[in-house]
Amino acid sequence: MEQVLINGQWIDSNTNGSFQATNPMTGESIARTYPLSAWSEIDQALAAASQAFRELRSVHPNTIAEFLETYADLIQADKEALVALAHEETGLPVAPRLGDVELPRTVSQLKQAAAATRTGSWAMPTIDTKANIRSCYEALGPVCVFGPNNFPFAFNSLAGGDFAAAIAAGNPVIGKANSSHPATTQRFAQLALKAMEKTGMPRGLVQLIYRTTHADGEKLVSDPRLAAIGYTGSRHAGLQLKAAADRVGKPFYAELSSVNPVVFLPGSLKERGDKLIEEYVTSGLMGAGQFCTNPGLLLLIDSPEAQHFIEGVVAKYMQTPPGTLLSKSVESSLVKSISVLKDAGAELLAGGDKIAGGRCAVANTVLKVSGEAFLLAPAQFQTEAFGNAVLIVVCKDQTEIVRAIESLEGNLTGCIYSATDGSDDSMYAPIAVEMLQKVGRLLNDKMPTGVAVSPAMNHGGPFPATAHPGFTAVGIPASLIRFAKLTCYDAVRHDRLPHLLQDNNPRKAWRLIDGAWTL
Amino acid sequence: MEQVLINGQWIDSNTNGSFQATNPMTGESIARTYPLSAWSEIDQALAAASQAFRELRSVHPNTIAEFLETYADLIQADKEALVALAHEETGLPVAPRLGDVELPRTVSQLKQAAAATRTGSWAMPTIDTKANIRSCYEALGPVCVFGPNNFPFAFNSLAGGDFAAAIAAGNPVIGKANSSHPATTQRFAQLALKAMEKTGMPRGLVQLIYRTTHADGEKLVSDPRLAAIGYTGSRHAGLQLKAAADRVGKPFYAELSSVNPVVFLPGSLKERGDKLIEEYVTSGLMGAGQFCTNPGLLLLIDSPEAQHFIEGVVAKYMQTPPGTLLSKSVESSLVKSISVLKDAGAELLAGGDKIAGGRCAVANTVLKVSGEAFLLAPAQFQTEAFGNAVLIVVCKDQTEIVRAIESLEGNLTGCIYSATDGSDDSMYAPIAVEMLQKVGRLLNDKMPTGVAVSPAMNHGGPFPATAHPGFTAVGIPASLIRFAKLTCYDAVRHDRLPHLLQDNNPRKAWRLIDGAWTL
Repeated sequence: MEQVLINGQWIDSNTNGSFQATNPMTGESIARTYPLSAWSEIDQALAAASQAFRELRSVHPNTIAEFLETYADLIQADKEALVALAHEETGLPVAPRLGDVELPRTVSQLKQAAAATRTGSWAMPTIDTKANIRSCYEALGPVCVFGPNNFPFAFNSLAGGDFAAAIAAGNPVIGKANSSHPATTQRFAQLALKAMEKTGMPRGLVQLIYRTTHADGEKLVSDPRLAAIGYTGSRHAGLQLKAAADRVGKPFYAELSSVNPVVFLPGSLKERGDKLIEEYVTSGLMGAGQFCTNPGLLLLIDSPEAQHFIEGVVAKYMQTPPGTLLSKSVESSLVKSISVLKDAGAELLAGGDKIAGGRCAVANTVLKVSGEAFLLAPAQFQTEAFGNAVLIVVCKDQTEIVRAIESLEGNLTGCIYSATDGSDDSMYAPIAVEMLQKVGRLLNDKMPTGVAVSPAMNHGGPFPATAHPGFTAVGIPASLIRFAKLTCYDAVRHDRLPHLLQDNNPRKAWRLIDGAWTL
Repeated sequence: MEQVLINGQWIDSNTNGSFQATNPMTGESIARTYPLSAWSEIDQALAAASQAFRELRSVHPNTIAEFLETYADLIQADKEALVALAHEETGLPVAPRLGDVELPRTVSQLKQAAAATRTGSWAMPTIDTKANIRSCYEALGPVCVFGPNNFPFAFNSLAGGDFAAAIAAGNPVIGKANSSHPATTQRFAQLALKAMEKTGMPRGLVQLIYRTTHADGEKLVSDPRLAAIGYTGSRHAGLQLKAAADRVGKPFYAELSSVNPVVFLPGSLKERGDKLIEEYVTSGLMGAGQFCTNPGLLLLIDSPEAQHFIEGVVAKYMQTPPGTLLSKSVESSLVKSISVLKDAGAELLAGGDKIAGGRCAVANTVLKVSGEAFLLAPAQFQTEAFGNAVLIVVCKDQTEIVRAIESLEGNLTGCIYSATDGSDDSMYAPIAVEMLQKVGRLLNDKMPTGVAVSPAMNHGGPFPATAHPGFTAVGIPASLIRFAKLTCYDAVRHDRLPHLLQDNNPRKAWRLIDGAWTL
């Protein structure tokens, strides 16, 4: 049985059971077994995180930055082993995906987080010199990160965006490994421990557990020693945990589900229909559709061009070999979601079934429904089919598109494609206005699957895309704010102020002083 | 029966019952009766707010600013009537409190909110020019404001801080009047309607209901047409509503309870004990102690100076005529909280009982407990005694103070008084470190009852002081963010961008462009 990392030590788990991951390319279990931690062990992790947070208060932010940078370098140097483990556990291609895209992104995120920690500008220091009132965001306390299955590196509990943001803001992290890639996460924990030792971090800064009972998961997220939770995963499990955290007023940042509507306005299909088929199919089947921002709901107005577009998508979906899904559970829930859509009245144009054999895979799937039918059962028709399946809604006119968007829950993204000659412009505005109420990010003539790590990015959106519409999970420095508390110093003597709020601005942060931003 | 304001019209309520407010100076009911709205009426208000939000999207922010300014001017001009109504309903003094402090503050908040709306800097426009990704905060949707009993103007559902912030961010407001001052709130609604008409606002911008059943309150806060809630009031009722909002992932900004610990370090008492008695008593009895930031928990280390301080406070509490409480329910819950503290083992040094007669009042109350006893039942001893009562915790040493603070829930404020000669400095740091984990605002040598409307203010704090540690309810522009969603424009064509994100910065807002803040 593999060990858990508690308070700087790899220890045998006080286990409640065990589990194994599966190689989704074969459907066979991977030999290593991982523990389902008992509460006593989670309790130890919480105590150590609490102690680490106490110690962190006297660690200079530059030292935290050094930890993040050292860790990033160790990840870079360990690329081969990490990529091999993640490939085995997720079936994601070694290249370009894991080695050339996701790993560099992960390293870069950690380094950007380190840079944010060094300047402190992320904390938005604000000074009212006349009243001598000063405020900034400060570390919140231990954070538990539940990473998703679909990004074993870039959203890993112990290396991804939430981890980087929580540490950079000055908080210890308890990582709950995603059960589909425990070995990858364990490898990260080993590297993090090395980086902690090299940079003299508190022993409880980064800890790892693999799995808990549902009851212990709820106990963990509502424990007074825990300050906040970053959760990316299934809606059902997420809502259970969120309810437990909500009851005790604890911030629960969640990314739960999103169908990411895409509207192709008639002029765009007339102007460049074949190009759009290509563009859509590339995005829709990327990573076997297992992106939080996968475009899973297309909205068109019926026309010969729309029919041509649909036929083109169907043809390409049928020609393209289906990618490997991350796990048996992704496979079975995709098949189930397709059934829900069919039962609601969607017509199956391609795919729909599991591929024969051990490999986790479902045939690339296209479903179609009329706008009228969609509007009769919008809840069922926006069932997220996580994976390589898409629902195309054929509307009779612009009004029906607007009404369909109006009937949507919150989403991470929404895209509108329009003609470059202005012929779609009168349709654009009313659709965009409606879309903006429902999504965190609006795109024009661009697919949503790329999520740039930019300060201007919003990887967030209204519920249930996320649990709060005001925060982003991607983009530095903004993602750090989630794991911080606003703290005001009112008439506090100058030598007792944190560096960020002292008159001479020793950290050279951007600060809002008497209404003006200044360095 | 008084009317409700729905969609720009005063209409007879489709009522489920009625209620009357009480004049707390006499304990007698005030003649006017107000409706308990039936769901059909709340449903109408939600529909009108939804429609108003739709219309607001095409209203220029400057026009919203004009509404706020016009409304502020109308309030100023109506001062005499407003003050008279609020005085009758709350017993708060006409002068200086209502007329010279709270009304000017309310007018000023509305004008500051208008100024924030004009520039748009509050929305923190962020531009990544290389990636052509842009983001800012945008209006969220209809907001319901539940105002508290203790600030009939400055936190009024239809004129106070939450109202100003929600409107300034571009959202319609449904005000749920506090039941202890319905006439004051009705008067505000009349003025708001006049301002709406003068500035051509959507009819559903500002609406007023007085009371609902508990079940309808929960239905209201979880209705899909409502985007967020601002709640200031009792913890029990607030948590019920919060749970309903949480279940559907709706932001619920709440201010629930706070005992606002104050530590007097030994040197400060030696140096200026008599002055501190004066300073504390003024703050502690201000408004009969009915401030969210009332200093209700004092922490001292036992010494002759500490005993002198306690005796001084007791003497002044006994000499000072007790103020009028806001309502019978404030009176009865204060008496109940004092009982809880006594039952837990606190010693009653002064007061404790209701004053004879109809007037709502309790004798100024001082309770005392040892640090050791406090630590045995911290939950009971931090029961909020909203009103003119204080609990003094006499600790044996600094460690006991630190442990007492460690045992606290979240609070809005925490104060530390220390000697000016540096003799308390070694004690300050460990206490401040602990205090900072528990409070939203740390003060030095200053009482917490003043809450400046400053951009650097934080009127917030960890749960249960508020429902999220990252937001402030006072201070413009920061308070606006609560009622906004982060929205990203990814590759959106330039002429389709909101003004705030266009290259030429037509609104002259502060913007974060490629990592640098610029005008």
